[in-house]
Amino acid sequence: MEHIPILKMGNLLLVTIQVDMHDRLAMTLQDDLTTRIVKDHASGVLIDISALDIVDSFIGRMISNTAAMARILDARTVLVGMQPAVAITLVELGLTLHGVQTALNVEKGISLLQRNAT
Amino acid sequence: MEHIPILKMGNLLLVTIQVDMHDRLAMTLQDDLTTRIVKDHASGVLIDISALDIVDSFIGRMISNTAAMARILDARTVLVGMQPAVAITLVELGLTLHGVQTALNVEKGISLLQRNAT
Repeated sequence: MEHIPILKMGNLLLVTIQVDMHDRLAMTLQDDLTTRIVKDHASGVLIDISALDIVDSFIGRMISNTAAMARILDARTVLVGMQPAVAITLVELGLTLHGVQTALNVEKGISLLQRNAT
Repeated sequence: MEHIPILKMGNLLLVTIQVDMHDRLAMTLQDDLTTRIVKDHASGVLIDISALDIVDSFIGRMISNTAAMARILDARTVLVGMQPAVAITLVELGLTLHGVQTALNVEKGISLLQRNAT
């Protein structure tokens, strides 16, 4: 079964999305991520989408839902690495990433999470 | 064209391999990574293979070559997240990851690179 790797860095978890998400993979990721937030006592989640050329409503909703799940488990989610074309498309399509903060790259995402933690 | 994302964290670069490597993708990764080592003044490279169930001789050689390229550019490479079954297969097939250090996970890999840097 396919899994997207979740990397632990201190009290943060890092997920890099590189492959096309489909229903089952998205559910597996949400299962894995929520399990790891609890197991690793994570306070933040970084989702890197720099490999994605397209973010459609399915992926957008998946990211929003994942962030909502993380928030209930007391972890904050930051979306990093969004390509300019994706930002343009999101606005043009009227898609909002509800409840998700964004940062330019992983480094800025980490500092955002650490700044707000203190 | 498909790219594997390279994430910058301080003076380290992190690559998570999630998809099947083929010739062109491996060459693209090596191009991208060497470019980024120079551009970001990276002193170390972490390659995460926790998503790989199989490491065959092609991937093994690709990782060794990438590490050799990084070393010439004065960056050290640590391979992290190897699954137990992969370690078993590598030994059984007699494959050696020449010139590549390994660590259990990203955190241990980062501390390995930072310890040796000082």
